[in-house]
Amino acid sequence: MIRVTVWNEFIHEKSNPNVREIYPEGMHTCIAEGLREDAGLEVRTATLDEPEHGLTETVLEATDVLTWWGHTAHERVRDEIVLRVRKRVHEGMGLLVLHSGHYSKIFKSLMGTTCSLCWREAGEKERLWVCNPAHPIAKGIDRYFEIEHTEMYGEPFGIPPPDEQIFVSWFAGGEVFRSGQTWKRGNGKIFYFRPGHETYPIYHDKTVKLILKNGVKWAAASGSKWIDSAPNIPVEQAPEPIEPWGGSVH
Amino acid sequence: MIRVTVWNEFIHEKSNPNVREIYPEGMHTCIAEGLREDAGLEVRTATLDEPEHGLTETVLEATDVLTWWGHTAHERVRDEIVLRVRKRVHEGMGLLVLHSGHYSKIFKSLMGTTCSLCWREAGEKERLWVCNPAHPIAKGIDRYFEIEHTEMYGEPFGIPPPDEQIFVSWFAGGEVFRSGQTWKRGNGKIFYFRPGHETYPIYHDKTVKLILKNGVKWAAASGSKWIDSAPNIPVEQAPEPIEPWGGSVH
Amino acid sequence: MIRVTVWNEFIHEKSNPNVREIYPEGMHTCIAEGLREDAGLEVRTATLDEPEHGLTETVLEATDVLTWWGHTAHERVRDEIVLRVRKRVHEGMGLLVLHSGHYSKIFKSLMGTTCSLCWREAGEKERLWVCNPAHPIAKGIDRYFEIEHTEMYGEPFGIPPPDEQIFVSWFAGGEVFRSGQTWKRGNGKIFYFRPGHETYPIYHDKTVKLILKNGVKWAAASGSKWIDSAPNIPVEQAPEPIEPWGGSVH
Amino acid sequence: MIRVTVWNEFIHEKSNPNVREIYPEGMHTCIAEGLREDAGLEVRTATLDEPEHGLTETVLEATDVLTWWGHTAHERVRDEIVLRVRKRVHEGMGLLVLHSGHYSKIFKSLMGTTCSLCWREAGEKERLWVCNPAHPIAKGIDRYFEIEHTEMYGEPFGIPPPDEQIFVSWFAGGEVFRSGQTWKRGNGKIFYFRPGHETYPIYHDKTVKLILKNGVKWAAASGSKWIDSAPNIPVEQAPEPIEPWGGSVH
Repeated sequence: MIRVTVWNEFIHEKSNPNVREIYPEGMHTCIAEGLREDAGLEVRTATLDEPEHGLTETVLEATDVLTWWGHTAHERVRDEIVLRVRKRVHEGMGLLVLHSGHYSKIFKSLMGTTCSLCWREAGEKERLWVCNPAHPIAKGIDRYFEIEHTEMYGEPFGIPPPDEQIFVSWFAGGEVFRSGQTWKRGNGKIFYFRPGHETYPIYHDKTVKLILKNGVKWAAASGSKWIDSAPNIPVEQAPEPIEPWGGSVH
Repeated sequence: MIRVTVWNEFIHEKSNPNVREIYPEGMHTCIAEGLREDAGLEVRTATLDEPEHGLTETVLEATDVLTWWGHTAHERVRDEIVLRVRKRVHEGMGLLVLHSGHYSKIFKSLMGTTCSLCWREAGEKERLWVCNPAHPIAKGIDRYFEIEHTEMYGEPFGIPPPDEQIFVSWFAGGEVFRSGQTWKRGNGKIFYFRPGHETYPIYHDKTVKLILKNGVKWAAASGSKWIDSAPNIPVEQAPEPIEPWGGSVH
Repeated sequence: MIRVTVWNEFIHEKSNPNVREIYPEGMHTCIAEGLREDAGLEVRTATLDEPEHGLTETVLEATDVLTWWGHTAHERVRDEIVLRVRKRVHEGMGLLVLHSGHYSKIFKSLMGTTCSLCWREAGEKERLWVCNPAHPIAKGIDRYFEIEHTEMYGEPFGIPPPDEQIFVSWFAGGEVFRSGQTWKRGNGKIFYFRPGHETYPIYHDKTVKLILKNGVKWAAASGSKWIDSAPNIPVEQAPEPIEPWGGSVH
Repeated sequence: MIRVTVWNEFIHEKSNPNVREIYPEGMHTCIAEGLREDAGLEVRTATLDEPEHGLTETVLEATDVLTWWGHTAHERVRDEIVLRVRKRVHEGMGLLVLHSGHYSKIFKSLMGTTCSLCWREAGEKERLWVCNPAHPIAKGIDRYFEIEHTEMYGEPFGIPPPDEQIFVSWFAGGEVFRSGQTWKRGNGKIFYFRPGHETYPIYHDKTVKLILKNGVKWAAASGSKWIDSAPNIPVEQAPEPIEPWGGSVH
């Protein structure tokens, strides 16, 4: 059983009638329902306005994979919660960063780059091409799939070179974008997936749901846990005998 | 002419007699002198206690490569200066991170990992092996070189996979360490180089000086500059004609 | 159930009394027995002198992970069998390349580099350090493990940058070596593991056995299969309507 | 002065009137002329039908960067010449692989993958987006540039993860493609650049010429040379004193 926590800032669904109509109970509820189609996933949700943004030590300790959706309130996510999530990623928790989450504190802090891109909100068509047809995340997808109406994200996408390039998008307006790629940081597996603008019913889409299920299973930790530490190894514990020499600042 | 700024926290040289004896004018002065042996390098220094840590906008704008040495005062480096340095790296400024700089704010924020390691201060012997014999940074180095007395750093080193592995160290006490590797973040080239503990005269070493000169030349920006931005591309500027559709949150 | 084929050139065990004493039934038999300790692995063996080197289409089609040991007879492996193995790796078959397999045709053809290294056969001590403590391949290993007597392999190791660095070796004679690392080629996962010189009982070692079991499970295919093809997409099948224009060479 | 050799199979220009009209003296002549616009480049050409395909030891020894165009005659390139080119790449010679060169023996042997893709020859429009705006290869290019009529190449492109992603293409017919990326193999820098189908005047295009000049300068060797060897290090030359132990197969 893989334990998933679906995180959402949950703001536009309350303030924008458009978005509320598409996601009356919030995008997190829709994403969680999609994941629950897989009996091997145990799914809970968490949102910005809950205490500690719903991401307490206890919740994170019991989370194998975290999915992250944020857009308008990245700056309201508290730094100590970001550090807590980041620590769990280094230990081995999987992380799915969705759409506008490219500008979240957690994603930027794991990438070490600007994570910037260009964009246009015009409801145009997107076609996502599979670059890595036998990757577990692309399982069940044909050569490509389409999203009829979406926000455009365009290159340059300010990310470090990914470990794996899984999807690249074509937009009717003429742009392209690296839309699905993976990295590891410490023992944590990270998958960025572009689709998901809140003014379109994208998380209701069958193929998008399939990819999120695939992604969560791919990102799930192996069971081992990387405990960060920077231990001093005293002379008498050196694997080979040595004689200490010289001064010290410690 | 490559413009280099050598940064040093400059603390142990004032507080520890041992260190002062080896670096009476500070490690930055010694490192800068080594670099000045190359007539193509124009070298200045900057230290923690100067206003803005000596890293004003003007200084950074006029810096092609920054070298970073810190150890005991990483937390005293102000966050806005770290962000300023980081922005310059993304634009294309080279960065050499030296020894205990592995735990500096700037290095950790560019790597997105813990950057932790294990260590022992016993003055033991280190032998650095060249893994990439024709890399510009290893130019002029034989199969290996030795540092007679040094602090030990041991694996696991909590870094993301490097683009290039240039040196790996053997220690008399039995450990190994990835001692010289490179990454790119945005348009900036980054070189981490392990040797440099302050209680030993390591920056006086001829081979270490050579590697720092090689590293600075390798990391120097190409002249182009990546300007970070996340522009909206309005419908009428789309490369292909499209009709806007649907709602908006903007 | 993961289906494993253990390949061995099986020559020195017959021609060299030393080696025969350690591996009376061949190294492949010893390696296969170690893997069979895991009830989830279904293990067969194959050797150079069998028809098609024991690697028929049928055998490879029924192989999820192949392990490869060769040393003195790399050139006797037929090119069409190498291409067959390589095709299966691209489709998704895992590959463990062991010790002197670094110079096998299959490994060199997947890496695209020289794969050269330096070496010494003096029975010295090797200490393998874990660089990636929570990686599935390092599961159950402490900070390091030792092999009392082994052949030395030293840097530079002529490989492309690995996706993951798992082990680095320290040798009593003073060298270091990247001893365990992974790559993907097509959909196939590749793990190179250094220990295994035939004049020492290395595949009888409990930790080495554990790592081979971990490695095989890590490398096992996901179930999807990348079918290589370079299809022409005729104009009438283009996702967007286009008008053909201009000349042709087809 | 960077010494460039422009290689071309030079077949369709002689057999196909269409192609001859565009490149009456061969594509190599046109590519070479474009490169000669840069006074820092010393350019010669070589073609399939010359002795040793024009790539003698002497020529390659005096070549800093080789550009490769082939399409219909990949199989006619002799294996020993491919090995000779490959050896030079490992030593440090730069390599630009152009368009249908994706299926050349030299490119496939350096990548270790299938290098397959899908394609359509319909003279449609291609728009190449810059993913890495401050990379030396993209110097002088705006956010994108267009080729009015071209052959389409589509994903999946069967390559290993590149070190740097520089261009991604959008096609009028609805596909996308990774059109400009780099790798290192040994000490050699490799740049694959997609445009260049022989039935369109692509190498006459000003932007394409600029990118080829940028690419050649980026790929030029640093001056060092990686000499491949796998030396035995005898016991008495070990950096640390050791006592030999055990049997031998050498």
